[in-house]
Amino acid sequence: MGKHGKSWKVPAAEALRAKPDIEVADFDASATPGFAGDKKSGNELLVERGEHLAELQERLYAAGRSGDHRSVLLVLQGMDTAGKGGIVKHVIGAVDPQGIDHTSFGVPSEEEKKHNYLWRIRNALPRGGQIGVFDRSHYEDVLVVRVHNLVPESVWEKRYDEINRFESKLVESGTTIVKVAMFVSLEEQKERLAERLDRPDKYWKYNPADIDERKRWPDYQEAYQAVLDKTSTDVAPWYVVPCDRKWFSRLAVTELLIDALERLQLGWPPADFDVEAEKKRLAKA
Amino acid sequence: MGKHGKSWKVPAAEALRAKPDIEVADFDASATPGFAGDKKSGNELLVERGEHLAELQERLYAAGRSGDHRSVLLVLQGMDTAGKGGIVKHVIGAVDPQGIDHTSFGVPSEEEKKHNYLWRIRNALPRGGQIGVFDRSHYEDVLVVRVHNLVPESVWEKRYDEINRFESKLVESGTTIVKVAMFVSLEEQKERLAERLDRPDKYWKYNPADIDERKRWPDYQEAYQAVLDKTSTDVAPWYVVPCDRKWFSRLAVTELLIDALERLQLGWPPADFDVEAEKKRLAKA
Repeated sequence: MGKHGKSWKVPAAEALRAKPDIEVADFDASATPGFAGDKKSGNELLVERGEHLAELQERLYAAGRSGDHRSVLLVLQGMDTAGKGGIVKHVIGAVDPQGIDHTSFGVPSEEEKKHNYLWRIRNALPRGGQIGVFDRSHYEDVLVVRVHNLVPESVWEKRYDEINRFESKLVESGTTIVKVAMFVSLEEQKERLAERLDRPDKYWKYNPADIDERKRWPDYQEAYQAVLDKTSTDVAPWYVVPCDRKWFSRLAVTELLIDALERLQLGWPPADFDVEAEKKRLAKA
Repeated sequence: MGKHGKSWKVPAAEALRAKPDIEVADFDASATPGFAGDKKSGNELLVERGEHLAELQERLYAAGRSGDHRSVLLVLQGMDTAGKGGIVKHVIGAVDPQGIDHTSFGVPSEEEKKHNYLWRIRNALPRGGQIGVFDRSHYEDVLVVRVHNLVPESVWEKRYDEINRFESKLVESGTTIVKVAMFVSLEEQKERLAERLDRPDKYWKYNPADIDERKRWPDYQEAYQAVLDKTSTDVAPWYVVPCDRKWFSRLAVTELLIDALERLQLGWPPADFDVEAEKKRLAKA
């Protein structure tokens, strides 16, 4: 369940877990489910919890170095401007880069297109002791691919089950998967796109195609609805994070990672040598 | 040359660059070359300069996303306990993980052993827009390999020239290489190893073989001397960083990275679309 900080009325992992009856079209992206505090207390808590996350991550890394095969995989999915990059910078940025294995999945390369859609995902899975971070993921193959009819329905409709089987095996092999669906409202997205057009230091983040995608918003909502309905499993549930308030989404993902790491019950690896004997050797060395 | 902060009398890139007449055996690992401040001012400056580094890194990342093929490669070499991990955590940790491509090079795997020693290095080079970080590197193949006679002298003696050619091509292709030799004193290493034996949360960092390596200290000094003498080139010079004071080594590497990034003279990528036209489209979308 994970400890919940002073301002969480309900632990994040409970408050944000996708409910079976979730309606994406009615989702309030400006809400702060489970959290009683405001922006100021949220930002203060983020610093404190980021430090806790960093300590837990060090334990995971230490365990990996000592032969523990377990890992954590954070999957970030969301519409443009939802703030995936901000999560990487502000949440993942709080922990030691040595223990992070980050991959962005864009339009598949020529090489990637030659293989099944899970091929590039398998190649990017975290090793034991690492936190893998996926900025977009195999879910693109039932989101953008579905919305744009990049493959026939007969192909993508089979992928939900394939993904569930893939993730189930991954969990069995020791990877804790934290799947985060990041939802921003159409209005907030407009403001964020406008900011990119107002600031020359943000032009590089702007893509004219993003505006075309806005017209397909209902299609994306439908595609996300199917993802949540079909792939939120007991072993790899989805967490749905409202992202109109950046401070909240960052705090929320921090808590979800803390929850995942705490469930691993990581101690420090015991010495695999005779400590006292080594102290004597060192004294003479 | 790079801006130098208020407490640097001589810019770090100048003060730390390996001199042709450097004598590794006489090197003072507790010195703070070029820096006039103390630990407190050094730590304050580290925070400030870390923010500057993060901004420069964002520009590099933005350039990469806009087709710029240039990258930066930080090579960290040093004896055990010199603090390579601390550099990754505290210096690289200051920038956005999205733009970092970190690789640790340990004992070569079976797969790696089948190839030339530069094979795994080539596979880990940073793409355009990225800062690659090598925790150990191809220099292991003229350091530990030389000290332990893992290949005949006739093999390793050719590697210095091979490495120079390899790095020269890498620089030509747009990668700025920042090579950092981290030197810790034998006495300070003893204290750091003792700390690992005193703290159960540090046992995992301790390796009994480290004590055996201490006996080979003069051999390593000789091997490092050869590296500096033969591979500190105009296009890829070595920087020699005293590491007995962790605060200094972290500040120093921060400055060296800032210097490398400033030399790229990175602006923000211009818009590759009509800004005013996009504003109008967005207003209606």
